Amino acid sequence: MTSDLFVKMSLSAWKTQNTRLDELLAKLSDEQLMQPTAPGRNTGTYLLGHLTAVNDSLFKFLGFGEMMHPELEDVFLRSPDGSGKTMPTVKQLRDYWSEVNTALYIKMDAMTAADWFAKHSAVSEEDFIKDPHRNKLNIILNRTTHQGYHLGQIAYLVKK
Amino acid sequence: MTSDLFVKMSLSAWKTQNTRLDELLAKLSDEQLMQPTAPGRNTGTYLLGHLTAVNDSLFKFLGFGEMMHPELEDVFLRSPDGSGKTMPTVKQLRDYWSEVNTALYIKMDAMTAADWFAKHSAVSEEDFIKDPHRNKLNIILNRTTHQGYHLGQIAYLVKK
Repeated sequence: MTSDLFVKMSLSAWKTQNTRLDELLAKLSDEQLMQPTAPGRNTGTYLLGHLTAVNDSLFKFLGFGEMMHPELEDVFLRSPDGSGKTMPTVKQLRDYWSEVNTALYIKMDAMTAADWFAKHSAVSEEDFIKDPHRNKLNIILNRTTHQGYHLGQIAYLVKK
Repeated sequence: MTSDLFVKMSLSAWKTQNTRLDELLAKLSDEQLMQPTAPGRNTGTYLLGHLTAVNDSLFKFLGFGEMMHPELEDVFLRSPDGSGKTMPTVKQLRDYWSEVNTALYIKMDAMTAADWFAKHSAVSEEDFIKDPHRNKLNIILNRTTHQGYHLGQIAYLVKK
Protein backbone atom coordinates (compact mmCIF):
# COMPACT_ATOMS: atom_id res chain seq x y z
CA MET A 1 0.00 0.00 0.00
CA THR A 2 2.68 2.53 1.02
CA SER A 3 4.87 1.11 -1.76
CA ASP A 4 2.10 1.73 -4.28
CA LEU A 5 1.95 5.30 -3.06
CA PHE A 6 5.72 5.93 -3.56
CA VAL A 7 5.52 4.45 -7.02
CA LYS A 8 2.61 6.72 -7.85
CA MET A 9 4.42 9.79 -6.46
CA SER A 10 7.64 9.05 -8.30
CA LEU A 11 6.10 8.15 -11.64
CA SER A 12 3.80 11.12 -11.47
CA ALA A 13 6.77 13.46 -10.88
CA TRP A 14 8.64 11.93 -13.82
CA LYS A 15 5.63 12.05 -16.16
CA THR A 16 5.08 15.69 -15.23
CA GLN A 17 8.54 16.49 -16.58
CA ASN A 18 7.76 14.66 -19.82
CA THR A 19 4.56 16.67 -20.13
CA ARG A 20 6.47 19.90 -19.54
CA LEU A 21 8.76 19.06 -22.42
CA ASP A 22 5.71 18.26 -24.57
CA GLU A 23 4.40 21.74 -23.72
CA LEU A 24 7.70 23.42 -24.56
CA LEU A 25 7.89 21.50 -27.85
CA ALA A 26 4.39 22.69 -28.74
CA LYS A 27 5.51 26.30 -28.19
CA LEU A 28 8.82 26.13 -30.06
CA SER A 29 9.22 26.02 -33.84
CA ASP A 30 11.87 23.76 -35.39
CA GLU A 31 13.93 26.89 -36.09
CA GLN A 32 13.76 27.96 -32.46
CA LEU A 33 14.73 24.49 -31.28
CA MET A 34 17.81 24.59 -33.48
CA GLN A 35 19.14 27.64 -31.60
CA PRO A 36 21.61 27.45 -28.70
CA THR A 37 19.75 27.69 -25.37
CA ALA A 38 22.30 30.38 -24.33
CA PRO A 39 25.38 31.72 -26.15
CA GLY A 40 27.83 28.87 -26.74
CA ARG A 41 25.61 26.31 -25.01
CA ASN A 42 23.66 23.23 -26.17
CA THR A 43 20.98 23.70 -28.81
CA GLY A 44 17.38 22.76 -28.13
CA THR A 45 17.70 20.04 -30.77
CA TYR A 46 20.64 18.46 -28.99
CA LEU A 47 18.84 18.59 -25.64
CA LEU A 48 15.70 17.07 -27.16
CA GLY A 49 17.83 14.25 -28.59
CA HIS A 50 19.63 13.88 -25.27
CA LEU A 51 16.42 13.64 -23.23
CA THR A 52 14.93 11.22 -25.77
CA ALA A 53 18.03 9.01 -25.61
CA VAL A 54 17.95 9.08 -21.78
CA ASN A 55 14.31 7.99 -21.71
CA ASP A 56 14.98 5.43 -24.44
CA SER A 57 17.80 3.95 -22.35
CA LEU A 58 15.25 3.23 -19.60
CA PHE A 59 14.16 0.19 -21.62
CA LYS A 60 17.55 -1.32 -20.77
CA PHE A 61 17.80 -0.13 -17.16
CA LEU A 62 14.30 -1.28 -16.29
CA GLY A 63 14.83 -4.63 -18.02
CA PHE A 64 12.24 -4.12 -20.77
CA GLY A 65 14.64 -4.80 -23.63
CA GLU A 66 16.77 -2.74 -25.97
CA MET A 67 16.54 0.95 -26.93
CA MET A 68 14.03 1.76 -29.66
CA HIS A 69 16.61 4.07 -31.27
CA PRO A 70 20.06 2.78 -30.30
CA GLU A 71 21.61 5.13 -32.85
CA LEU A 72 20.80 8.04 -30.50
CA GLU A 73 23.24 6.78 -27.88
CA ASP A 74 26.43 7.73 -29.69
CA VAL A 75 25.23 11.17 -30.86
CA PHE A 76 23.33 12.32 -27.77
CA LEU A 77 24.79 10.42 -24.81
CA ARG A 78 28.44 9.88 -25.73
CA SER A 79 29.12 12.98 -27.85
CA PRO A 80 28.69 16.68 -27.14
CA ASP A 81 26.59 19.00 -29.26
CA GLY A 82 28.30 20.00 -32.53
CA SER A 83 30.27 16.74 -32.72
CA GLY A 84 29.57 16.56 -36.45
CA LYS A 85 27.94 13.14 -36.03
CA THR A 86 24.79 12.60 -38.09
CA MET A 87 21.75 13.80 -36.17
CA PRO A 88 18.15 12.92 -36.95
CA THR A 89 16.08 15.92 -38.09
CA VAL A 90 14.16 17.97 -35.52
CA LYS A 91 10.96 16.52 -36.93
CA GLN A 92 12.24 12.97 -36.40
CA LEU A 93 13.37 13.80 -32.88
CA ARG A 94 9.95 15.15 -31.99
CA ASP A 95 8.43 11.87 -33.23
CA TYR A 96 10.95 9.72 -31.37
CA TRP A 97 10.29 11.62 -28.14
CA SER A 98 6.57 10.83 -28.27
CA GLU A 99 7.05 7.29 -29.52
CA VAL A 100 9.57 6.34 -26.82
CA ASN A 101 7.38 7.78 -24.05
CA THR A 102 4.21 6.11 -25.29
CA ALA A 103 5.95 2.73 -25.36
CA LEU A 104 7.59 3.32 -21.96
CA TYR A 105 4.33 4.30 -20.26
CA ILE A 106 2.69 1.06 -21.37
CA LYS A 107 5.54 -1.01 -19.93
CA MET A 108 5.78 1.05 -16.74
CA ASP A 109 2.08 1.05 -16.01
CA ALA A 110 2.17 -2.76 -16.05
CA MET A 111 4.84 -2.90 -13.31
CA THR A 112 3.99 -3.73 -9.71
CA ALA A 113 5.48 -1.92 -6.70
CA ALA A 114 7.66 -4.99 -6.07
CA ASP A 115 9.05 -4.72 -9.62
CA TRP A 116 10.04 -1.10 -8.96
CA PHE A 117 11.90 -1.96 -5.78
CA ALA A 118 13.93 -4.65 -7.54
CA LYS A 119 17.49 -3.86 -8.61
CA HIS A 120 18.14 -2.07 -11.88
CA SER A 121 20.23 -3.65 -14.60
CA ALA A 122 23.40 -1.63 -13.96
CA VAL A 123 23.92 -2.87 -10.38
CA SER A 124 25.24 -6.30 -9.33
CA GLU A 125 23.29 -8.61 -6.98
CA GLU A 126 26.06 -8.19 -4.43
CA ASP A 127 26.03 -4.38 -4.50
CA PHE A 128 22.26 -4.35 -4.37
CA ILE A 129 22.25 -6.24 -1.06
CA LYS A 130 24.51 -3.53 0.36
CA ASP A 131 22.64 -0.62 -1.28
CA PRO A 132 18.94 -1.51 -1.70
CA HIS A 133 18.20 2.07 -2.74
CA ARG A 134 19.79 1.25 -6.11
CA ASN A 135 16.45 0.00 -7.34
CA LYS A 136 14.47 0.76 -10.50
CA LEU A 137 12.42 3.48 -8.84
CA ASN A 138 15.58 5.32 -7.85
CA ILE A 139 16.49 5.58 -11.52
CA ILE A 140 13.18 7.34 -12.07
CA LEU A 141 13.91 9.79 -9.23
CA ASN A 142 17.31 10.60 -10.74
CA ARG A 143 15.98 10.91 -14.27
CA THR A 144 13.27 13.28 -13.06
CA THR A 145 15.84 15.74 -11.71
CA HIS A 146 17.94 15.32 -14.84
CA GLN A 147 14.93 16.27 -16.96
CA GLY A 148 14.26 19.29 -14.76
CA TYR A 149 17.87 20.40 -15.26
CA HIS A 150 17.60 20.47 -19.04
CA LEU A 151 14.03 21.79 -19.10
CA GLY A 152 15.30 24.88 -17.28
CA GLN A 153 17.69 25.36 -20.21
CA ILE A 154 15.25 24.59 -23.03
CA ALA A 155 12.82 27.08 -21.45
CA TYR A 156 15.32 29.82 -22.41
CA LEU A 157 14.34 29.28 -26.06
CA VAL A 158 10.81 30.53 -25.37
CA LYS A 159 10.54 34.23 -26.19
CA LYS A 160 9.72 36.39 -23.18
CA MET B 1 11.21 -0.82 5.92
CA THR B 2 10.20 0.07 2.37
CA SER B 3 9.05 3.45 3.69
CA ASP B 4 12.45 4.06 5.26
CA LEU B 5 14.09 3.18 1.99
CA PHE B 6 11.92 5.53 0.02
CA VAL B 7 12.53 8.37 2.48
CA LYS B 8 16.26 7.73 2.16
CA MET B 9 16.08 7.74 -1.65
CA SER B 10 14.04 10.95 -1.78
CA LEU B 11 16.07 12.89 0.77
CA SER B 12 19.30 11.76 -0.79
CA ALA B 13 18.13 13.03 -4.21
CA TRP B 14 17.17 16.39 -2.68
CA LYS B 15 20.42 16.74 -0.72
CA THR B 16 22.38 15.95 -3.86
CA GLN B 17 20.85 19.00 -5.52
CA ASN B 18 21.80 21.16 -2.54
CA THR B 19 25.34 19.86 -2.78
CA ARG B 20 25.44 20.63 -6.50
CA LEU B 21 24.52 24.22 -5.76
CA ASP B 22 27.23 24.32 -3.07
CA GLU B 23 29.70 23.17 -5.73
CA LEU B 24 28.53 25.77 -8.24
CA LEU B 25 28.75 28.50 -5.58
CA ALA B 26 32.32 27.45 -4.80
CA LYS B 27 33.22 27.85 -8.49
CA LEU B 28 31.49 31.19 -9.09
CA SER B 29 32.73 34.58 -7.87
CA ASP B 30 30.22 37.13 -6.55
CA GLU B 31 30.68 39.06 -9.81
CA GLN B 32 29.87 35.99 -11.89
CA LEU B 33 26.79 35.27 -9.79
CA MET B 34 25.52 38.78 -10.40
CA GLN B 35 25.38 38.14 -14.17
CA PRO B 36 22.26 37.01 -16.04
CA THR B 37 22.36 33.24 -16.61
CA ALA B 38 21.50 33.93 -20.29
CA PRO B 39 20.74 37.22 -22.08
CA GLY B 40 17.67 38.83 -20.50
CA ARG B 41 17.18 35.97 -18.01
CA ASN B 42 17.43 35.69 -14.23
CA THR B 43 20.76 36.49 -12.59
CA GLY B 44 22.61 33.91 -10.53
CA THR B 45 22.02 36.11 -7.46
CA TYR B 46 18.26 36.06 -7.98
CA LEU B 47 18.24 32.30 -8.48
CA LEU B 48 20.37 31.78 -5.37
CA GLY B 49 17.89 33.92 -3.39
CA HIS B 50 14.99 32.06 -4.99
CA LEU B 51 16.35 28.60 -4.14
CA THR B 52 17.20 29.76 -0.61
CA ALA B 53 13.68 31.11 -0.11
CA VAL B 54 12.17 27.87 -1.44
CA ASN B 55 14.24 25.76 0.97
CA ASP B 56 13.50 28.22 3.78
CA SER B 57 9.76 27.87 3.13
CA LEU B 58 10.08 24.14 3.84
CA PHE B 59 10.09 25.03 7.55
CA LYS B 60 6.45 26.01 7.11
CA PHE B 61 5.39 23.22 4.76
CA LEU B 62 6.97 20.52 6.89
CA GLY B 63 5.51 22.00 10.08
CA PHE B 64 8.83 22.96 11.68
CA GLY B 65 7.90 26.59 12.24
CA GLU B 66 8.45 29.87 10.41
CA MET B 67 10.98 30.81 7.74
CA MET B 68 14.41 31.81 9.04
CA HIS B 69 14.44 34.73 6.59
CA PRO B 70 10.82 35.68 5.89
CA GLU B 71 12.03 38.85 4.12
CA LEU B 72 13.19 36.64 1.22
CA GLU B 73 9.63 35.66 0.37
CA ASP B 74 8.57 38.96 -1.16
CA VAL B 75 11.78 39.55 -3.15
CA PHE B 76 12.50 36.02 -4.36
CA LEU B 77 9.16 34.18 -4.39
CA ARG B 78 6.60 36.87 -5.17
CA SER B 79 8.64 39.26 -7.33
CA PRO B 80 10.63 38.69 -10.50
CA ASP B 81 14.32 39.54 -10.85
CA GLY B 82 14.98 43.24 -11.26
CA SER B 83 11.86 44.24 -9.30
CA GLY B 84 13.87 46.96 -7.57
CA LYS B 85 13.04 45.50 -4.16
CA THR B 86 15.91 45.51 -1.68
CA MET B 87 17.96 42.34 -2.07
CA PRO B 88 20.46 41.00 0.45
CA THR B 89 24.06 41.07 -0.82
CA VAL B 90 25.47 38.02 -2.61
CA LYS B 91 27.66 37.38 0.43
CA GLN B 92 24.58 37.37 2.70
CA LEU B 93 22.70 35.08 0.33
CA ARG B 94 25.57 32.60 0.32
CA ASP B 95 25.44 32.57 4.12
CA TYR B 96 21.65 32.20 4.25
CA TRP B 97 21.79 29.29 1.82
CA SER B 98 24.16 27.33 4.08
CA GLU B 99 22.45 28.37 7.27
CA VAL B 100 18.94 27.38 6.10
CA ASN B 101 20.15 24.00 4.85
CA THR B 102 22.10 23.21 8.01
CA ALA B 103 19.05 23.93 10.15
CA LEU B 104 16.73 22.01 7.79
CA TYR B 105 18.93 18.91 7.74
CA ILE B 106 18.85 18.71 11.53
CA LYS B 107 15.05 18.88 11.58
CA MET B 108 14.66 16.47 8.66
CA ASP B 109 17.06 13.87 9.95
CA ALA B 110 14.96 13.65 13.12
CA MET B 111 11.79 12.79 11.17
CA THR B 112 10.46 9.23 10.98
CA ALA B 113 9.06 7.66 7.81
CA ALA B 114 5.55 8.07 9.27
CA ASP B 115 6.18 11.82 9.70
CA TRP B 116 7.11 12.09 6.04
CA PHE B 117 3.94 10.36 4.90
CA ALA B 118 1.74 12.75 6.89
CA LYS B 119 0.02 15.58 5.06
CA HIS B 120 1.89 18.80 4.39
CA SER B 121 0.65 22.11 5.77
CA ALA B 122 -0.85 23.39 2.51
CA VAL B 123 -3.38 20.57 2.10
CA SER B 124 -6.64 20.13 4.05
CA GLU B 125 -7.45 16.95 6.01
CA GLU B 126 -10.30 16.31 3.61
CA ASP B 127 -8.20 16.62 0.44
CA PHE B 128 -5.48 14.51 2.00
CA ILE B 129 -7.87 11.59 2.44
CA LYS B 130 -8.66 11.77 -1.27
CA ASP B 131 -5.02 12.37 -2.35
CA PRO B 132 -2.64 10.69 0.11
CA HIS B 133 0.27 11.41 -2.22
CA ARG B 134 0.05 15.05 -1.05
CA ASN B 135 2.32 14.22 1.84
CA LYS B 136 5.50 15.91 3.10
CA LEU B 137 7.77 13.66 1.12
CA ASN B 138 6.03 14.60 -2.10
CA ILE B 139 7.05 18.20 -1.44
CA ILE B 140 10.65 17.03 -1.35
CA LEU B 141 10.23 15.22 -4.68
CA ASN B 142 8.81 18.37 -6.27
CA ARG B 143 11.44 20.64 -4.75
CA THR B 144 14.19 18.35 -6.03
CA THR B 145 13.07 18.76 -9.63
CA HIS B 146 12.63 22.50 -9.09
CA GLN B 147 16.22 22.74 -7.89
CA GLY B 148 17.41 20.74 -10.90
CA TYR B 149 15.58 23.19 -13.17
CA HIS B 150 17.40 26.23 -11.81
CA LEU B 151 20.75 24.46 -11.40
CA GLY B 152 20.73 23.84 -15.15
CA GLN B 153 20.45 27.61 -15.56
CA ILE B 154 23.00 28.62 -12.91
CA ALA B 155 25.45 26.18 -14.53
CA TYR B 156 25.50 28.53 -17.54
CA LEU B 157 27.46 31.04 -15.43
CA VAL B 158 30.41 28.65 -15.24
CA LYS B 159 32.96 29.46 -17.95
CA LYS B 160 33.44 26.66 -20.48
